[in-house]
Amino acid sequence: MKCLIIAAGKGSRLRQRGDSKPLIPVLGVPLIERAIRSAVEAGVDGFFVVTGYQGERVRGFLGSLAAHLGVPITPLFNEDWEKEDGLSVLKAREHLHEPFLLLMSDHLFDPSIAREMMSHPPDEGEIILAVDEGIRNSLVDMEDVTRVKTEDGKIRNIGKGLTDFNGFDTGIFYCTPAIFEALEHSTEKYGETTLSGAVRILATVDRARALHISGRFWIDVDDPAAFGRAEKALLDRLRSKPNDGPVARYLNRPLSVKISRRLVKYPVTPNQISLFSFLCSMLGAGLFAFGGYPGLLMGGLLAQFASVLDGCDGEVARLKFQRSVYGGWFDAVLDRYADAFLLFGLTWHALSANPGPLMLFIGFLAIIGSFMLSYTADKYDRLMSDRIIHGNVFRLGRDVRVFLIFIGAIFNQVPLTLSLIALVMNIETIRRVIVCRDHG
Amino acid sequence: MKCLIIAAGKGSRLRQRGDSKPLIPVLGVPLIERAIRSAVEAGVDGFFVVTGYQGERVRGFLGSLAAHLGVPITPLFNEDWEKEDGLSVLKAREHLHEPFLLLMSDHLFDPSIAREMMSHPPDEGEIILAVDEGIRNSLVDMEDVTRVKTEDGKIRNIGKGLTDFNGFDTGIFYCTPAIFEALEHSTEKYGETTLSGAVRILATVDRARALHISGRFWIDVDDPAAFGRAEKALLDRLRSKPNDGPVARYLNRPLSVKISRRLVKYPVTPNQISLFSFLCSMLGAGLFAFGGYPGLLMGGLLAQFASVLDGCDGEVARLKFQRSVYGGWFDAVLDRYADAFLLFGLTWHALSANPGPLMLFIGFLAIIGSFMLSYTADKYDRLMSDRIIHGNVFRLGRDVRVFLIFIGAIFNQVPLTLSLIALVMNIETIRRVIVCRDHG
Repeated sequence: MKCLIIAAGKGSRLRQRGDSKPLIPVLGVPLIERAIRSAVEAGVDGFFVVTGYQGERVRGFLGSLAAHLGVPITPLFNEDWEKEDGLSVLKAREHLHEPFLLLMSDHLFDPSIAREMMSHPPDEGEIILAVDEGIRNSLVDMEDVTRVKTEDGKIRNIGKGLTDFNGFDTGIFYCTPAIFEALEHSTEKYGETTLSGAVRILATVDRARALHISGRFWIDVDDPAAFGRAEKALLDRLRSKPNDGPVARYLNRPLSVKISRRLVKYPVTPNQISLFSFLCSMLGAGLFAFGGYPGLLMGGLLAQFASVLDGCDGEVARLKFQRSVYGGWFDAVLDRYADAFLLFGLTWHALSANPGPLMLFIGFLAIIGSFMLSYTADKYDRLMSDRIIHGNVFRLGRDVRVFLIFIGAIFNQVPLTLSLIALVMNIETIRRVIVCRDHG
Repeated sequence: MKCLIIAAGKGSRLRQRGDSKPLIPVLGVPLIERAIRSAVEAGVDGFFVVTGYQGERVRGFLGSLAAHLGVPITPLFNEDWEKEDGLSVLKAREHLHEPFLLLMSDHLFDPSIAREMMSHPPDEGEIILAVDEGIRNSLVDMEDVTRVKTEDGKIRNIGKGLTDFNGFDTGIFYCTPAIFEALEHSTEKYGETTLSGAVRILATVDRARALHISGRFWIDVDDPAAFGRAEKALLDRLRSKPNDGPVARYLNRPLSVKISRRLVKYPVTPNQISLFSFLCSMLGAGLFAFGGYPGLLMGGLLAQFASVLDGCDGEVARLKFQRSVYGGWFDAVLDRYADAFLLFGLTWHALSANPGPLMLFIGFLAIIGSFMLSYTADKYDRLMSDRIIHGNVFRLGRDVRVFLIFIGAIFNQVPLTLSLIALVMNIETIRRVIVCRDHG
């Protein structure tokens, strides 16, 4: 599947952010790179990008991006970039003889929209436009958006000035080459060189279908206000991770998102963040073991800080399209070491005040219980996911565990904390063993 | 997909094992139940079973098996069970109007043969027979086997007395109802009432295909010698578990198979075996902690015994068709607790002789390292399997870990053993982190 991206405009309303609009970064990733990576995630394996204003710079960027992604990106050039967008689309006419995806470089979108689109190809001579039926979508700039009127899944009319409309043009198209003929027809007959003009022509002959996006994310980044909304929307999406436990959701995540927002501007990789968070935990564990109460306090703060940072690796990976199977695994492995060392540090601390086998045994149970909770969850995940009771409110994860350590350290209640962790983690493990059996 | 099973014969050569041949257990499971469960594993969802000798008893057994499996099993009756097998097949004529699987109750087979067969249905008027092309198959009784001559995937001739042959009849058929007409035709025209006679008729009109089984397991259990070979073959299959580490392969597995062979005769479930093995480990851990050298020795023996038993749960599950997702998970969870308690017991033992933080830290590292090895392997398994280097000789699993504990206990070298485990397990974890990264 090939994809055509229009990246010719100047974007004068975003001048303050950068001179070439497609290269303006949104949370660390240039707009054109976001469009291309989203399309790759959706399954596209080749690109044509129509450049215009500052074309040389954009083409240079695309060259290195193509090499990095291992996907062919062919730059085209529209010398008439100051004119309407239909002319840019026509520049690709010679290259596209099969159905193709058509995107705007300044629109961000959830790749699942493009993926769903690609699973329903257009009929011969047809085009499909992803239409946002959410008339109350707060990300839409009502002054500037292209409005669409649909009826029974067909587009009836399209244009910026429509008063009778029930959706918005998201800028995501699945076209047959018929779009080129419609553009020429529209230009010759009506002198109308916009893409909307061509869509109107196809709509009159019932060849323009609408795909409803059902509330999924998209945004047109056209001016500083939209830019701010786009960044906020991308960050908000990070907060809605369904696996987050209560501490992650209400304490760690709001903080980590604020940190990630800054981190994306630097060339820091998610694995480096995981490693840094791990080192903070290890330092915290050392302070627990050797520091008396001041060490305990500092260690607790460090552990909780590391737990917040532990969210940033995944967030930065999502924001910068750097998610990887290895990254998730590496993070999990480091977390297990960090957990164990923190609890061992606490045990050591407790033993220096209350030496004896009981304290040692409680520390051991806390370590093993915490480990078992992660282990069962992962084996759970793989083998047992159908047996998990949905809507389980009693979600015990690393966020809760480290928070208990943090609170226990602050209040200098190490034996109590270790006992609590030992008890709760092992009981929860046993509960899982029983729940899984009963659902077997 | 329906399946017809012929279970009418008397099996007089197996009289000493039981009076009704289909009900004779092979490693704890009656022959007819093995045939039915293998077919269910292959995807069959309904059975017709032709009974004969001791039909009442067999039908009673099938009734409770159907209820237990939740699969309909319709018993039919052939009063002429002393005559040829073709008559039994004809008893199902009224019930089968679509292609169906045809099996013999006294043949054991790898369900993957039936599964592969079912993915290549016969053409109209055709039958397919699974043919063993392995002329040197030591499980075949050359005196008694039905021989087959194939050419280009077609059956040319079939019969017990063939001298020109290149394969054996495995008794696994995929038939269209054409088999019934061929049987009638063979009976009327030649007075030949065997199934082989009908296959010969179809072969002459090029309607009998052969599916080669490529060395997969099957055996006809017809006399005490074949019975012994069948049991041995089923047990041998347990030994070839590709994930086994060196200690499992050469020490634990040969012992556990001997134990499982006896266990299958009792109504013990795999999960009960897992639990018993776990309790042995826990007892061993207790002896480590409190027993001095005699306790250490006894604990080591118990731990190694538990490690051997730890193979039996899976073996019994495979032999008795009791494998379950939960069983594997439950076993893994108990193993992690057992590992941790054994190492904690050893640490306790070592601390009573050499108290001090170093020993404590080594014990902690041994526990965490062992845990990490299992954790990374499971996360490995799920996320990283494509990055494992195949043919990795350095396989470190639970078998090796417990064996080290056993040896260390016998030779009273606890600090050395803990140090070795701490070192090896953590280094191997770090090696995995690096290997996975390099393959990312």
